[in-house]
Amino acid sequence: MADAPEDMVESVLPTRWNRDFEKIANDLCPQLQRWTRTPQRVITFDKDEGQYFGVRAVPAEYPIDKLPSKTLGKGDGFILDFGIHMVGYLSMRLESRGSHMDAPCRLRLTFGESPLDVTLGMENVKTWISTSWLPDEIINIDMCPEEVSLSRRYSFRFLRVEVIDTSPKYKVTFSDVKCQCVSAISQNHSLEAPQFNDSLLQQIDHVSISTLRDCMQTVFEDGPRRDRRLWSGDLRLQALANYSTFRDFNLVKRCIFQFAAVVREDDSVPACIFEQPQLTPSTDYIVDYDALFAAITYDYVVASGDKAAGHSLWPTVLGCVKRALTHLDANTHAFDESKGEGWKFLDWQPGLEHSAGLHGVLLYCLKAANSLATVLGKEAPFVDLVAQMTEAAKVFLSPDNVFVSGPKGQVSFASASWLVLAEAYPQETAKAALINTLAHPDALKPLTPYLWHHVCDALATVGLFDKCVEIMTSYWGGMVRAGADTFWECYNPEDPRASPYGDARNNSFCHAWSCTPTYLLRGKLREFVGVNETKSVTMGHLDEYWIRSQVGSQ
Amino acid sequence: MADAPEDMVESVLPTRWNRDFEKIANDLCPQLQRWTRTPQRVITFDKDEGQYFGVRAVPAEYPIDKLPSKTLGKGDGFILDFGIHMVGYLSMRLESRGSHMDAPCRLRLTFGESPLDVTLGMENVKTWISTSWLPDEIINIDMCPEEVSLSRRYSFRFLRVEVIDTSPKYKVTFSDVKCQCVSAISQNHSLEAPQFNDSLLQQIDHVSISTLRDCMQTVFEDGPRRDRRLWSGDLRLQALANYSTFRDFNLVKRCIFQFAAVVREDDSVPACIFEQPQLTPSTDYIVDYDALFAAITYDYVVASGDKAAGHSLWPTVLGCVKRALTHLDANTHAFDESKGEGWKFLDWQPGLEHSAGLHGVLLYCLKAANSLATVLGKEAPFVDLVAQMTEAAKVFLSPDNVFVSGPKGQVSFASASWLVLAEAYPQETAKAALINTLAHPDALKPLTPYLWHHVCDALATVGLFDKCVEIMTSYWGGMVRAGADTFWECYNPEDPRASPYGDARNNSFCHAWSCTPTYLLRGKLREFVGVNETKSVTMGHLDEYWIRSQVGSQ
Repeated sequence: MADAPEDMVESVLPTRWNRDFEKIANDLCPQLQRWTRTPQRVITFDKDEGQYFGVRAVPAEYPIDKLPSKTLGKGDGFILDFGIHMVGYLSMRLESRGSHMDAPCRLRLTFGESPLDVTLGMENVKTWISTSWLPDEIINIDMCPEEVSLSRRYSFRFLRVEVIDTSPKYKVTFSDVKCQCVSAISQNHSLEAPQFNDSLLQQIDHVSISTLRDCMQTVFEDGPRRDRRLWSGDLRLQALANYSTFRDFNLVKRCIFQFAAVVREDDSVPACIFEQPQLTPSTDYIVDYDALFAAITYDYVVASGDKAAGHSLWPTVLGCVKRALTHLDANTHAFDESKGEGWKFLDWQPGLEHSAGLHGVLLYCLKAANSLATVLGKEAPFVDLVAQMTEAAKVFLSPDNVFVSGPKGQVSFASASWLVLAEAYPQETAKAALINTLAHPDALKPLTPYLWHHVCDALATVGLFDKCVEIMTSYWGGMVRAGADTFWECYNPEDPRASPYGDARNNSFCHAWSCTPTYLLRGKLREFVGVNETKSVTMGHLDEYWIRSQVGSQ
Repeated sequence: MADAPEDMVESVLPTRWNRDFEKIANDLCPQLQRWTRTPQRVITFDKDEGQYFGVRAVPAEYPIDKLPSKTLGKGDGFILDFGIHMVGYLSMRLESRGSHMDAPCRLRLTFGESPLDVTLGMENVKTWISTSWLPDEIINIDMCPEEVSLSRRYSFRFLRVEVIDTSPKYKVTFSDVKCQCVSAISQNHSLEAPQFNDSLLQQIDHVSISTLRDCMQTVFEDGPRRDRRLWSGDLRLQALANYSTFRDFNLVKRCIFQFAAVVREDDSVPACIFEQPQLTPSTDYIVDYDALFAAITYDYVVASGDKAAGHSLWPTVLGCVKRALTHLDANTHAFDESKGEGWKFLDWQPGLEHSAGLHGVLLYCLKAANSLATVLGKEAPFVDLVAQMTEAAKVFLSPDNVFVSGPKGQVSFASASWLVLAEAYPQETAKAALINTLAHPDALKPLTPYLWHHVCDALATVGLFDKCVEIMTSYWGGMVRAGADTFWECYNPEDPRASPYGDARNNSFCHAWSCTPTYLLRGKLREFVGVNETKSVTMGHLDEYWIRSQVGSQ
């Protein structure tokens, strides 16, 4: 998810706090793991139209170990490449050279997740979300030597340092530049490392894991650079990727109980919560995210075996679908987005008709609730409704077997993927309709990795593995080829400066909802893509391997 | 003094450290006094061509106690008036208002000594000294409520706060804005308060004291805003003003021993020293500032009665005139600026010929050394030289009794004032020549308050009190009428944006060398200007009185 547009925010009902749930969540707060990374090389970016961002990182004239011997004055600067995306706290030692430091030193530090950040600068950014997210700091140092430690956490691979001014009498040197990285996942954390036959898929799996790790802080963050919050729909995808990799069940449990602690008086689950200054529900509400709480809980109980949590959360699961249910036509039981209130999301695509897709989401979630009931030894509560909605789903299939939504019969990938995932039709029907819809010339395509994931998951669900891998290698693989260490909030193969916010410098380049290829590759796609062998490696080992692949043996 | 141009800096001889002197200085380091000030009012600046800076401070639509109830978002801001110039550390409480603080808050804080700072902004400042001195900070606050405390010391009366961005979801409030002021002089420090007949002179006396207090930190600083160092020529003036007011002898003693601790191998005294990161002489060397060390020491011993210090410093006093003496013509004993090396200052006036003025400075200092010898019970070392230089001084008087300097016979206030102060001529001769020179159509006038002080002191020395008071009321009085709380580094009655640095936003508006009127008013001018009564008051009382005079009873 991402920062929500102002017009999507509604006035909300009061919160019905569950302090017991809040305590469970608080007790599960992870001790963040910390480790230190140092820059691998000094680089410049040369123009190169053959590259996605139009620039290519080139080693500077001097190696990184010569940086401390360089003296920099007004207008000088450099760009450091740490060789890997990190979330953490920067520090460096600043010393003065010359007759005396007779004036302060003013620096601009720009933290780059992408080459755009450190090559375009941060001036004149036109964006409708807060420019306070822009990753630059201007700092003033009165006296050297000084150990400069930035108190704010940044998310970056590149660091651009610009000396705004020293004085005619002195220059400065930079040494001991380092980042204290943080994550809930330590460098010693061990995980399964399947060796895929295809090296691009291997990289995609790796980048997925890095994305997930950097988003795993004291909650599953949306993006560590910007919008550092917990969103429920995104949590679902992160949790699935986590079950296939780190298997950190406590962090998922903590987040689920955080949501359950702050449901509204009508039992709806907020779309998003804040941890600081204290646990607070956001005013954002999204119908699909609300209902997905049932699926998140079911997935968690199955993956962890923690039935006790399932029992505790059962009332919340029952409550989370209530607002979505108000959208059902009383006669047909088909979801109609005009019938109830609340923001329906699925994707950021403008003009998207949500009825068919939300029908799929809701059916999917009701089934998850029924499955959870079975696991918990309860009676499944939505058996009749599932049957009714399955029957109703026929209205979203056109006579020529294409998924359609709304009064104008809009064709979209969103409708198709969620109706398939909900298994609303016999598999062969679903498979054919999915093929037809994806090939339909008028079909609205996804704008976000979030919906691309659901398209891929739907394809894998009906056995269309080759099409699924094709999308994965072109979409997520496109980001890897463009230089991604972590997967991005948004990716437009045609336009490196595309942004839902008006300016790509406010985009996040490590974003939770893009981390799912590892879940599919290690799950539904595993057999299809082929795995040579499976080893157990530490996260530190994977990181070192990545850095070497990025910067060589420098 | 001020930041020295690069071409005035020379390669210097090694330092001959005197660690005993350094220890004496260190042991005298004052515990800085601290007190808290809060803003008096929220203001705007309206255009007003009748005002020196072209703007007039006008109370905002709401009183200061309503500030915490104001919510500010992107593009909003305000200017606070603390009612008095301060040196210290800003803090404030920031809270968020709205649904939630879902993005950082980015603020720009601009600390104004003058209205220019907070009305012009700090963009596009063209100046040859470091722009790192510009008094603004951009800060980012991730989460509220937050007690924002700036770690850097600022020198200001006005604070402009600009909200660069919040987010569409929240705004911020500002409360508990305060400045922890620092000085070697406490609010409880008691000093004599003569009640002058003339209210402008009363204000000038007051502003002098405020200037001095704000420059008195762990050393006598040049200016607390910029160039926060100890310069010897400036120390002399501050010490004289201090003897007439605060009588803090220890701080003067500390500074004298700091200089004496770092003389060069040729016995010359550096023009300036740095305290941080450890005591260090600057590479700046000024011939007149070197010699003036003798006068500073003599003044200190007389004012404090501390003859022991005089004995310790005696070798340094003998050494400090040596480089100046190399400029004397071997036959005539007249100072010739072309004969020796080193920057001769007197004033920043371009094209100034220094021979006559430096002759005056050196003669003044040799006499001070002789007088110090007498006080210490030593034989005066420069009796013959004083006689020779007194005789030689005749060459600087033209046949028509005007002070002249150099091969072209340049007429200047600088030559006149120092030759008069040196008492190189019978008083009536000096008086007439001073009158003639100041009235001379080609005479080079002073550019700095430093030289204007010496002009005034010379006038008072020969009894030209009315002319002295006339200059004081027009020059220092001009600053008071223009709104000065403290006297400025430079003042051009015709041009509020005049600057020796190319941009007035790098000027200092609380500057040591401008604090001397109180010394003259309480000394040589006391009888002439008339004093009704003399009370003893605390500095806190004087400050409160000033604030009330500035902002009324708000």
